[in-house]
Amino acid sequence: MISFEEAFEKVLSHTIELGTETLPLLSSTHRILAEDIMADRDFPPFNRSTKDGIAINYRAIEEGITEFPVQGVLSAGLSQQRLENASHCLEIMTGAVLPHDADTIIMYEETEISNGIAKITSTPKKGQNIHSQGSDIEKGEVILKKGTQITSAVIGVLASVGKHQVLVQKAPRICVISTGNELVEVHDTPEPHQIRKSNVISLSAALSNQRIAHELVHLPDVKEAIESKLKQVLEDFDVLMLSGGVSKGKFDYIPEVLNSLGVEKIFHRVAQRPGKPFWFGRHEKSGSVVFSFPGNPVSTFANYHVYFLSWLKVVNGDISTHIEVTLQEEVNPHPTLTLFLQVQTHWKGSKLHARLIKGNGSGDLVNLAQAHGFIKVPTGEKVFEKGQTFTFFPAS
Amino acid sequence: MISFEEAFEKVLSHTIELGTETLPLLSSTHRILAEDIMADRDFPPFNRSTKDGIAINYRAIEEGITEFPVQGVLSAGLSQQRLENASHCLEIMTGAVLPHDADTIIMYEETEISNGIAKITSTPKKGQNIHSQGSDIEKGEVILKKGTQITSAVIGVLASVGKHQVLVQKAPRICVISTGNELVEVHDTPEPHQIRKSNVISLSAALSNQRIAHELVHLPDVKEAIESKLKQVLEDFDVLMLSGGVSKGKFDYIPEVLNSLGVEKIFHRVAQRPGKPFWFGRHEKSGSVVFSFPGNPVSTFANYHVYFLSWLKVVNGDISTHIEVTLQEEVNPHPTLTLFLQVQTHWKGSKLHARLIKGNGSGDLVNLAQAHGFIKVPTGEKVFEKGQTFTFFPAS
Repeated sequence: MISFEEAFEKVLSHTIELGTETLPLLSSTHRILAEDIMADRDFPPFNRSTKDGIAINYRAIEEGITEFPVQGVLSAGLSQQRLENASHCLEIMTGAVLPHDADTIIMYEETEISNGIAKITSTPKKGQNIHSQGSDIEKGEVILKKGTQITSAVIGVLASVGKHQVLVQKAPRICVISTGNELVEVHDTPEPHQIRKSNVISLSAALSNQRIAHELVHLPDVKEAIESKLKQVLEDFDVLMLSGGVSKGKFDYIPEVLNSLGVEKIFHRVAQRPGKPFWFGRHEKSGSVVFSFPGNPVSTFANYHVYFLSWLKVVNGDISTHIEVTLQEEVNPHPTLTLFLQVQTHWKGSKLHARLIKGNGSGDLVNLAQAHGFIKVPTGEKVFEKGQTFTFFPAS
Repeated sequence: MISFEEAFEKVLSHTIELGTETLPLLSSTHRILAEDIMADRDFPPFNRSTKDGIAINYRAIEEGITEFPVQGVLSAGLSQQRLENASHCLEIMTGAVLPHDADTIIMYEETEISNGIAKITSTPKKGQNIHSQGSDIEKGEVILKKGTQITSAVIGVLASVGKHQVLVQKAPRICVISTGNELVEVHDTPEPHQIRKSNVISLSAALSNQRIAHELVHLPDVKEAIESKLKQVLEDFDVLMLSGGVSKGKFDYIPEVLNSLGVEKIFHRVAQRPGKPFWFGRHEKSGSVVFSFPGNPVSTFANYHVYFLSWLKVVNGDISTHIEVTLQEEVNPHPTLTLFLQVQTHWKGSKLHARLIKGNGSGDLVNLAQAHGFIKVPTGEKVFEKGQTFTFFPAS
């Protein structure tokens, strides 16, 4: 049995190389940009009106003119026009192109227009209300760097430079595997000794919440079936995520089969609660990694959030710091086990506070439904006083 | 022009009734449960072994027996067996049903098994290592209440009680509408006076990130086309989200058309920056609401997060408190406008800290791609000193 710190470090150091792929823009959210993105034009691409009003030539103001015959109206989306006479004006809408020979815009609120004449009621400054071409970004400038995570704002930038196809890092291909003859489908009525699949369904929902594609597979407790199925998924997937099947029971063939298929055990059993019988390995040939979580719901759920999501952050090059919470009560550490305790969180000013949820052992799925995540309580002898901060793994 | 506080309150008070629908379990994440969920059996459904080891009858211990002939092996998924002889034992795996006439489980680590005899090496407690039937929940108990938001842990609970179909609150039907002749598609090469659609693409990505279904529609600056299209979407959708089209420009027909179609203007223009020309209305006949955001990218993005997501929380009955951040620098308020400033955030202990991103006005989409969200800076005269906390609207 190894310590939590050692296990965590070992998991994070077994990342995988994913390669790249091209995706349609709107399918690329949450992915990692695999190319630098350059501006394909100046931003803004023209001298752009920032107000609805009139466009004039400032020389007219210098010459004392305050009334301007209206030559016409320019809306956004029209090509660039020309102010034909320097003592006239053009009405102009927000987003429209500043006409040739105009250099200043006066908003409607500072004009009075009647009978085709705009009278100005304020003293304009030369160049006002114009968002100058290229003032945000010049054509050719790098506007998004390789490695950027694609958020909805990034999608907006990509759209504006015409990237309808984006080169991104491939997502790991993930297979979620349920094990055990005691499991029946959700729509089945279990016999008294059976239970419905819930762990892998919950993992599937958690992965979908982060828009991580994955497949579900079931392995019965039959060695030959386990062998042929695992052989295949090791070829087809980058990550195998198992629930159940690695405790010390006689019918837990999985570690043995994994070993025979060339999956090296990196560790088995971690000094933590819940989630102690966690098994982690790596397929030497393909580099695929195997997260084999304990069979009980809270253990699987905790280890998914603690280990898998942290691993995925590293794979994605996400360097954001971890979250901490202030616990509003005292808590007893365990002398030799790292504890992951379910908490509910709430904000108090800019501080994230947490309260423990008292569960009924690691089998209690219903308490888990109320938890916002897990705090990590390091091993120790002395009680942690109220108000202490702990690393927080939010539930997804 | 109304104050931000007034506008915000008006938006939140115009919620809509959504009705309910039945969805397949894995399609129900992020939705709101529209029924109480009862346990369809005891949890656990039988006296369940929590360890791999041997099951015995404690009377044997009381009689001083320490060596037990092994009657057989019980794996998880087997129906309940019987311990035929009170001085024998059955090997038992984690998750298996406790056999009749056994009441105590001793883990393998505290036994030595050879030649079909299990010798115990510890002093067991009666009833140990058993998760008793119904100790988590009794059959018929309400385990999830109507109104619960369906997280991945909730999905696990629903799976375990066999809810492969779930009654949930309907999601609002959302139509995201781009406007303006100056817009071209992302895959098109714009003329110098044109720009690519990016606002609605960004909104679409933000909605998808929260798994909110929606459709995209474009309105050109032609009154008749606007009229017929808006009439139709008002019938088909609960929420219309427009970008652009409600400034004071001559070609902004939208407020006029909305009015003629029976959409009451609740307000237009809010004392805030960015996002001032925000128009909000309600279709009296259908109850649909119309969020008409200003055309520039940062304004649309800010108002989506500030108004729409807050509105959606109310519609979903989500009572979680808002988030605050500590700003690590001083900031000047505006005397009459509520400011929404772009920030990057990072954790420091359990406190969420923020730093301002200096943008180039509300048109600067590229800065937005680096922001983690917006802080709300109330109106005022005096500088807010470093270390002050502000309400935070995280970008999605």
